[in-house]
Amino acid sequence: MFASPIARLIQQLAKLPGVGEKTAARLAFHILRASPEDAAALAAAIGEVRQKIRFCSLCCDLTEADPCAICRDQRREGAMVCVVAQPQDLIAIERAGGYRGRYHVLHGLLSPLDGVGPDDLRVAELVRRCGDGTVQEAILATSPSVEGEATAVYLAKLLRPLGVRATRIATGVPMGGELEYADQATLARAIDGRREM
Amino acid sequence: MFASPIARLIQQLAKLPGVGEKTAARLAFHILRASPEDAAALAAAIGEVRQKIRFCSLCCDLTEADPCAICRDQRREGAMVCVVAQPQDLIAIERAGGYRGRYHVLHGLLSPLDGVGPDDLRVAELVRRCGDGTVQEAILATSPSVEGEATAVYLAKLLRPLGVRATRIATGVPMGGELEYADQATLARAIDGRREM
Repeated sequence: MFASPIARLIQQLAKLPGVGEKTAARLAFHILRASPEDAAALAAAIGEVRQKIRFCSLCCDLTEADPCAICRDQRREGAMVCVVAQPQDLIAIERAGGYRGRYHVLHGLLSPLDGVGPDDLRVAELVRRCGDGTVQEAILATSPSVEGEATAVYLAKLLRPLGVRATRIATGVPMGGELEYADQATLARAIDGRREM
Repeated sequence: MFASPIARLIQQLAKLPGVGEKTAARLAFHILRASPEDAAALAAAIGEVRQKIRFCSLCCDLTEADPCAICRDQRREGAMVCVVAQPQDLIAIERAGGYRGRYHVLHGLLSPLDGVGPDDLRVAELVRRCGDGTVQEAILATSPSVEGEATAVYLAKLLRPLGVRATRIATGVPMGGELEYADQATLARAIDGRREM
């Protein structure tokens, strides 16, 4: 019913998470009404992000330069690795301030029901990093959800034989909540209150 | 904090209506994880829609070909023009079926508080169309909201001196609701029950 370029844009927008057909139509008409500069900038940003962003070969975070800025930063403590599910979680912990170690991004959580196993996450890279004697503590900072807890327990079992202390962030983060949405004070307290597991 | 291409994409996505910074980040990471084909198709669809879509010189709807398919269709009754606020409303009425006249898209509603006057809408084009003797009835199908009612009253005063009957869709559409979200039966009844104003 819509002219085909509009229909195609709606179809593409509707593939985004949480965007249904009605929302996609609203977004499409907004893009049609936006300034030519804004529309071009959005299209260019999509192309650019896919072209320029890669995985850091050390921590597996998304980065433009490899290794990423945190892995290159010599002032960060290499003996401590904070393991998070996704890049947004790393950003949230950095915003909270106070943490001076390094990171490892898993890009997901174990979820057998959804068919997500260790091979679908950046677990092998974490084990490799933890096997060279530099890392002394891995702070398992996955969300306190079913999948987050299971992933932390799994990783703790894997890392302890390598001589790495596995700690878990305190449940200052509300149970069942998403780490990404925790406020800075809660996150900072959760990192301070980490305990042996 | 995010690598700059990611930050730029988030910034561009956050300009979309109803998309805050958190949602923009979710969408950006989805685009990063999507297949290269999907990401390219979204960027291309944005470029294409801006390049190929223009206003129909007769009804002011968005269209790829000018005049649009409905204005070109000789089977549509030229004596009847259904005036809507936005292209989505036209689509909704077409989906309801039963209406065989033509359309006029205003691209907005009068809203003095927001600084939207007749010159910001496609009112002059409507007056021009209604002045040539072909149009006998204008069905004012704006939403039954404050702005929609005011726009209908304003247009009725403008069109009657041109010898055009100004009718208003029945308030089968719930008061305060958005025309775009009305169900097909309600919309069809609203068109059938139109009354002189």
